[in-house]
Amino acid sequence: MRTIHWVDGHVDVIDQTALPQQRRVALHTVSQVVDAIHRMVVRGAPALGALGALGVALAAARSAEQGYDANAVRADAGRIAGAHPTAAHLGWAVQQVLPAVPRGDAAVLAAAQALVEADVRACATLSRLGAALLRSYVGDRPMVLHTHCNAGALACVEWGTALGVVRTLHADALIRMVVVGETRPLLQGSRITAVELAQLGVPHQVVVDAAGPGLIASGRVDAVIVGADRIAANYDVVNKVGTYPLALAAARAGIPFVVAAPAATLDPDTPTGAAVIIEHRDPDEVLLVGGWRMAPADSTALNPAFDVTPADLVTAIVTESRVIEPAGFEQVVRVPTMRPAPVR
Amino acid sequence: MRTIHWVDGHVDVIDQTALPQQRRVALHTVSQVVDAIHRMVVRGAPALGALGALGVALAAARSAEQGYDANAVRADAGRIAGAHPTAAHLGWAVQQVLPAVPRGDAAVLAAAQALVEADVRACATLSRLGAALLRSYVGDRPMVLHTHCNAGALACVEWGTALGVVRTLHADALIRMVVVGETRPLLQGSRITAVELAQLGVPHQVVVDAAGPGLIASGRVDAVIVGADRIAANYDVVNKVGTYPLALAAARAGIPFVVAAPAATLDPDTPTGAAVIIEHRDPDEVLLVGGWRMAPADSTALNPAFDVTPADLVTAIVTESRVIEPAGFEQVVRVPTMRPAPVR
Repeated sequence: MRTIHWVDGHVDVIDQTALPQQRRVALHTVSQVVDAIHRMVVRGAPALGALGALGVALAAARSAEQGYDANAVRADAGRIAGAHPTAAHLGWAVQQVLPAVPRGDAAVLAAAQALVEADVRACATLSRLGAALLRSYVGDRPMVLHTHCNAGALACVEWGTALGVVRTLHADALIRMVVVGETRPLLQGSRITAVELAQLGVPHQVVVDAAGPGLIASGRVDAVIVGADRIAANYDVVNKVGTYPLALAAARAGIPFVVAAPAATLDPDTPTGAAVIIEHRDPDEVLLVGGWRMAPADSTALNPAFDVTPADLVTAIVTESRVIEPAGFEQVVRVPTMRPAPVR
Repeated sequence: MRTIHWVDGHVDVIDQTALPQQRRVALHTVSQVVDAIHRMVVRGAPALGALGALGVALAAARSAEQGYDANAVRADAGRIAGAHPTAAHLGWAVQQVLPAVPRGDAAVLAAAQALVEADVRACATLSRLGAALLRSYVGDRPMVLHTHCNAGALACVEWGTALGVVRTLHADALIRMVVVGETRPLLQGSRITAVELAQLGVPHQVVVDAAGPGLIASGRVDAVIVGADRIAANYDVVNKVGTYPLALAAARAGIPFVVAAPAATLDPDTPTGAAVIIEHRDPDEVLLVGGWRMAPADSTALNPAFDVTPADLVTAIVTESRVIEPAGFEQVVRVPTMRPAPVR
């Protein structure tokens, strides 16, 4: 099943705001694409890349209906690329299809679809690399992994990145348990990741985000595996808010903190995490819980959607083309014999 | 306004599960006291201490109605002390009134009420000490403090511990902003702390718990101030789950992490945090959000209510009788001139 694909001249996507309910939405215009990004109908860096590329194809197709105008398509591409300030993949994917714009709508669609197919292959490859890396770190035994937010099939076109690694390990019976941070405020952990894991038959337990670091400290977790929205040139990792505390806890506990993401998430134009614009979303996402306002009427909220994990806390970044160990594995992981007996 | 007090032969408490709605509940029996602790009708370590002491007075009063039986009162005291495995205050307070049991119900009530009054004085004193300490750490200027869960009037008999420090600073116009972690799963931050701060007119912003460490890393926060449920002999601090990630982030950012708690929270019989029984609560608190089940039917959850912050991450513990700096302030707080300009 594809999360995002091109059908009959439009882009067809799963509405991630409706999950766990399955609902597909047809996007016929560039405005609908931009709105789908703003409202997080589509989320997850690789999925945003696919939507960005197919969005330009949509702009080209609409333009072709009224006499093709390459400049108008380029302007639409700019609107799409600017719809999400944090995810590296979106701007990158839009950029990748721009060279096809002068050649007409069929050429743009072909370029976009080639990019989508390459992304599917990238996820499969990096999942194999990530699984092999975790086996080398943790050992060839069923492991307990902690993940956050959703870096699964629904964040990509299919298969997933961090959850792709989990699926690959699960196929080899090497997953004992996946601990899933619920990921407030929008609960991508419980609404999306838990659903994917349940469908795949992978054993998992949901926790509130605040509980992750304490569980890691208790010795229950073998490694943390997450996706990324953008990776700076110095390997600082920008990902869903709540990733940084897991990295702090992993470093202190001496367990690996692994980031799985397509190579396009590495942004050479972003020198460090401090240079990334962190999107702040509607405070009501925090103040309303399950539709109920919890805080008093005159309370406000801050709602940063991402945080920055400094490179020195990252054990490894796994892409489809290379594995990067920013801090050097030996500096981060404690010697196994010093490890307290895990409580399970 | 007292959170907990003795009226007409029973204990009258604010029902904290109903907040922000104000509802008082009358506890007439020991079973009602135990149930109120289990269901978190009363929560917060100092409040649990007051309830424990008055609960023994309740046991004595009920016993006196049928011919006073000191052994039965002692048995009831044991039930009350065992109702919460993590909070040090509860067992301590029960222990404090036990010597009065042989002298009859009036003596038990007098001992319990003396303990409650001492607790009120302790909160006022430690709030002054904590405010002075933060002024010495941060400087005499309006500051941004991060707190978690609720260590305010509602967690005590009145005034509060961590929030008592905030109130004391606010009275001197030294609070610029209080960042409040919402404290999933039960949202004591948004339902209780935000309400207390709104009523007091203290500027505050609610955040999801996952956002706290990233905000601290961004330079927006001057210090973290929290309460404690139990402090081990080596100064490991047991507090609401989500405290440990804030301590990790504070240490990395070089800002003070301060714990405010009555001296009775220090438990000499607990050698380290590892020796504390961490209560695990109903998984449905995690899986249901605002009454809606978010995760699929076959997903489970882990729901630890507390975590352990190791002593080396604690800048200071402030009690009514002494200020303890477990790691030494100089080792934890960065030199002010090295600090990046705060973004506000």
